Amino acid sequence: MRITALAGGVGGARFLRGLLAAAPNATVTVIGNIGDDMTMHGLRICPDLDTVMYTLGGGIHEEQGWGRTEETFGVADELKAYGVGPDWFTLGDKDIATHLVRTQMLGAGYPLSEVTEALCTRWELPVRLLPSTDDRVETHVVVDDAEAPGGRRAVHFQEYWVRMHAPDARAIVSVGVESAKPAPGVLEAIAEADVIVLPPSNPVVSIGTILDIPGIRRAVADAAAPVVGLSPIVGGGPVRGMADKVLAAVGVEVSAAAVAEHYGADLLDGWLVDADADTGAVARVEAAGIACRAVPLMMSSPQATQAMAQAALDLAAELAAAKAAAARTATGSASD
Amino acid sequence: MRITALAGGVGGARFLRGLLAAAPNATVTVIGNIGDDMTMHGLRICPDLDTVMYTLGGGIHEEQGWGRTEETFGVADELKAYGVGPDWFTLGDKDIATHLVRTQMLGAGYPLSEVTEALCTRWELPVRLLPSTDDRVETHVVVDDAEAPGGRRAVHFQEYWVRMHAPDARAIVSVGVESAKPAPGVLEAIAEADVIVLPPSNPVVSIGTILDIPGIRRAVADAAAPVVGLSPIVGGGPVRGMADKVLAAVGVEVSAAAVAEHYGADLLDGWLVDADADTGAVARVEAAGIACRAVPLMMSSPQATQAMAQAALDLAAELAAAKAAAARTATGSASD
Repeated sequence: MRITALAGGVGGARFLRGLLAAAPNATVTVIGNIGDDMTMHGLRICPDLDTVMYTLGGGIHEEQGWGRTEETFGVADELKAYGVGPDWFTLGDKDIATHLVRTQMLGAGYPLSEVTEALCTRWELPVRLLPSTDDRVETHVVVDDAEAPGGRRAVHFQEYWVRMHAPDARAIVSVGVESAKPAPGVLEAIAEADVIVLPPSNPVVSIGTILDIPGIRRAVADAAAPVVGLSPIVGGGPVRGMADKVLAAVGVEVSAAAVAEHYGADLLDGWLVDADADTGAVARVEAAGIACRAVPLMMSSPQATQAMAQAALDLAAELAAAKAAAARTATGSASD
Repeated sequence: MRITALAGGVGGARFLRGLLAAAPNATVTVIGNIGDDMTMHGLRICPDLDTVMYTLGGGIHEEQGWGRTEETFGVADELKAYGVGPDWFTLGDKDIATHLVRTQMLGAGYPLSEVTEALCTRWELPVRLLPSTDDRVETHVVVDDAEAPGGRRAVHFQEYWVRMHAPDARAIVSVGVESAKPAPGVLEAIAEADVIVLPPSNPVVSIGTILDIPGIRRAVADAAAPVVGLSPIVGGGPVRGMADKVLAAVGVEVSAAAVAEHYGADLLDGWLVDADADTGAVARVEAAGIACRAVPLMMSSPQATQAMAQAALDLAAELAAAKAAAARTATGSASD
């Protein structure tokens, strides 16, 4: 079975681990978000790709969900001694090695997809990790700022999230997205998949950014495979992160059903909401033309996460079977 | 008193500490060698400037003579895990922070002299440290290589010294030196000095490279101040490093007297040889038109190093006094 998943950072990476446990023999391609990439201290940093890589490669700081286990901060302490900022983003030594290799390869002319492949080789990754694009796309968030002209200013997503701790957002801007092209292999991985999964990653600044790269949304919508997503909204809010703030910025209600409607029936075939979701959620999603099931959606343990992934695969199988049956019926009718 | 010193790495830096102890109230400008600078892992590394900076700033690894004290190697271990070479040059974490700041500032367009000044601010350096040039000059060493076309090849000085452990050298090439210009402040520091000192640094690949930058040798030779040097050759060989190999490569005998002759009487006014030098050494240097004294030249302790620096300053004072007396006599004769 070929599974293609779109993924953000911590939540996506954790879900992918459950997916690999649920489908140990599947060939999994992960299309990663690069919208929160940034350059700091001259180093090119890809937080979401690295979180997926470290998580699936066994190098992640488990409790934290991002960064390296047994990390040290010799470089960061010294940068501080030099008075070199920013002070709101601290890079660990092991992590810096990843960025040094990446920055040097990018500088030598390799596209990010080849750099990512080279980095993943060392981690013997059980998936194929592709950046959504080799082009530069940066997510900026428009926030209120009384001192800025017009009372608003745009900040890089990392500054919005890490330094400012996600205040109310007025708009999300993907700088450079119009001219970005899907990275090599991305459209093929979508077209050739047996199942396409949207993990419970941020629907705006993670999966939304991937889908906004010209060609990717259309490819997912047109794919032969069933597309099944999992709600990142559980109990009226995001399990982790700032999905509530960025959903509000794009005018989407913070609910499991509204996120499904936001993705839309042209994209999504199936959707999982949390078992504790309000009783109208499933009906509302189904009314939008998307098959919906309610299952526990808290990634509280590897077993719980695996069960979530299994539920997504079960729904995909159910949708594929129904589609095949419909096709047989249609063919039968046509040949009658 | 304004002292201007030309300096290489470990030996030069150690000597400068003695110089500052001998002349605590002097204004000292150090013109540093940049011929062994290199780019590794995308980081711009200036080994000699950094050794001077760390030594005089109190951050040096004392026993080793280079690199940072209490250094850690988190980044290097991880680069090794990525299989990223070279394996013969290991960068410490604290040291990497210096290179990150430098590389980012250079990338932003600052010249090396301004970058060096910014780095030195943090170290509250008791000297003004100037790179000899803001331009790129790289020392390459021609070595025998049976497999190379013509049986020889040129390697970067760091590779020659650190990886190859200084085999016989056939030639020394300063790549880019013809078009290099002295960094801002260098010619002024030479012209305005009361004393110019050549520490016991490598006369070929350290001080030689500085002097080869167009304009610098002439400025030193023309300076009003006495120019006093200290022999890096003690007891028939270099105290440290590979001066014997690179002297041979440029056709200079490995002896204290021959190094003085190599610098030449047009450049040098005074020269110190080791107290244990063979008895003919002083006479030979003096015969070349260079005032010479024999004093202990092993930097075996801070006190010994201070005494060496004091001997250099004493000789400079003696030469300046003699010059002033000669000028008075000449004026007296002319007005007679």
